[in-house]
Amino acid sequence: MEIPVIRSVFESNEKRAEKVRSLLTQRNILTINLISSPGAGKTTLLEHTLAELKDEFHIAVIEGDLQTDNDAKRIAATGVQVVQINTEGGCHLESSMIQQCLDSLSLDTLDILVIENVGNLVCPVEFDLGEDCKVALLSVTEGDDKPEKYPLLFQLARVLLVTKTDLLPYVAFDTAKAEMSARRNNPDLTICEISCTKNEGLADWYNWIRKARQAKKEGLRI
Amino acid sequence: MEIPVIRSVFESNEKRAEKVRSLLTQRNILTINLISSPGAGKTTLLEHTLAELKDEFHIAVIEGDLQTDNDAKRIAATGVQVVQINTEGGCHLESSMIQQCLDSLSLDTLDILVIENVGNLVCPVEFDLGEDCKVALLSVTEGDDKPEKYPLLFQLARVLLVTKTDLLPYVAFDTAKAEMSARRNNPDLTICEISCTKNEGLADWYNWIRKARQAKKEGLRI
Repeated sequence: MEIPVIRSVFESNEKRAEKVRSLLTQRNILTINLISSPGAGKTTLLEHTLAELKDEFHIAVIEGDLQTDNDAKRIAATGVQVVQINTEGGCHLESSMIQQCLDSLSLDTLDILVIENVGNLVCPVEFDLGEDCKVALLSVTEGDDKPEKYPLLFQLARVLLVTKTDLLPYVAFDTAKAEMSARRNNPDLTICEISCTKNEGLADWYNWIRKARQAKKEGLRI
Repeated sequence: MEIPVIRSVFESNEKRAEKVRSLLTQRNILTINLISSPGAGKTTLLEHTLAELKDEFHIAVIEGDLQTDNDAKRIAATGVQVVQINTEGGCHLESSMIQQCLDSLSLDTLDILVIENVGNLVCPVEFDLGEDCKVALLSVTEGDDKPEKYPLLFQLARVLLVTKTDLLPYVAFDTAKAEMSARRNNPDLTICEISCTKNEGLADWYNWIRKARQAKKEGLRI
């Protein structure tokens, strides 16, 4: 009895994700699904990214959290449109939640939509939200074994951001090992090593977004 | 159709968990369920704990991971009995998995069983494994907002280990704020601040285990 029900949850999620993707693609809106462990630096990355790009593009953010609207407040402080989803304990976002949020966003003028998923390296990876691509964050404090131990995210992500590189002198993290392990089943993975604290490595990430948005406009593969 | 099935998953997990708990309690085996984000330091904590306590107690470890037996190998190197569970992508352990592992362990001589759950701050919290208590780890690199954003673990845990305190000089982490927030709905929570790298604060944790094991033998509340 359990297997058919689990399948139907995924199937109905996929169907709604396709609707979301089609709606956003019609409007050339580049849509990014940010996924990482709790505390890998998704919201801090967003604060920096919005500060850099908000005068260049119309950007909106959907914030996923179990509880609180702390992150949405941090994003709202940058002056960018933000919608908060509280999953009330739920471990991931689903496409139906994104579909609901789209009603609150000014889609006609939007260039980029960033979805910050619930902090979880496992469940969010299995739920397509209708995004163009998943972007994974891995902080150097989590250990270089994580791509091997949690492989699905690193296989499906288009970009891997290795975050908190300012802490490298104080932790045992072999960047080459982590990156090789992430690329093993995903040879086209783009990797940027960044530190928001020291404002290092972010230019490559900003340029990746610029190129991806241009590709979206031209109907090219991202 | 979905709600009854989800309920039945939890109900059957609870029933098996009670069987596991009853079996372990008959033998006075103190059972600890370690839960944290990926990379908060569960395996490193275990390596230190086993080195300290393995001559004093008979200890066994159940290692939960999505993939790989890397952690089990690290534990086996300490000379302690270990069983690996690979969830093949699953986001948490369930009591049925623990029940199966018990067949491989020498229960009659065992004093302490430690279960290292899958690295995930959300899903493992909802599945009782038949343990005496959950122990939460929160590394200072994850941010002091995590008890507020992921409240259930911090409400249900008996002990909170604030890990990687050696990194405090390099990150913005307000220890008092995190601890106050964790204690808000769990006033009896025991908190230890530890650094395995610097071998600091661990004595309190070791002594907590010694007392908990004694309480278990005497049939007292842990």
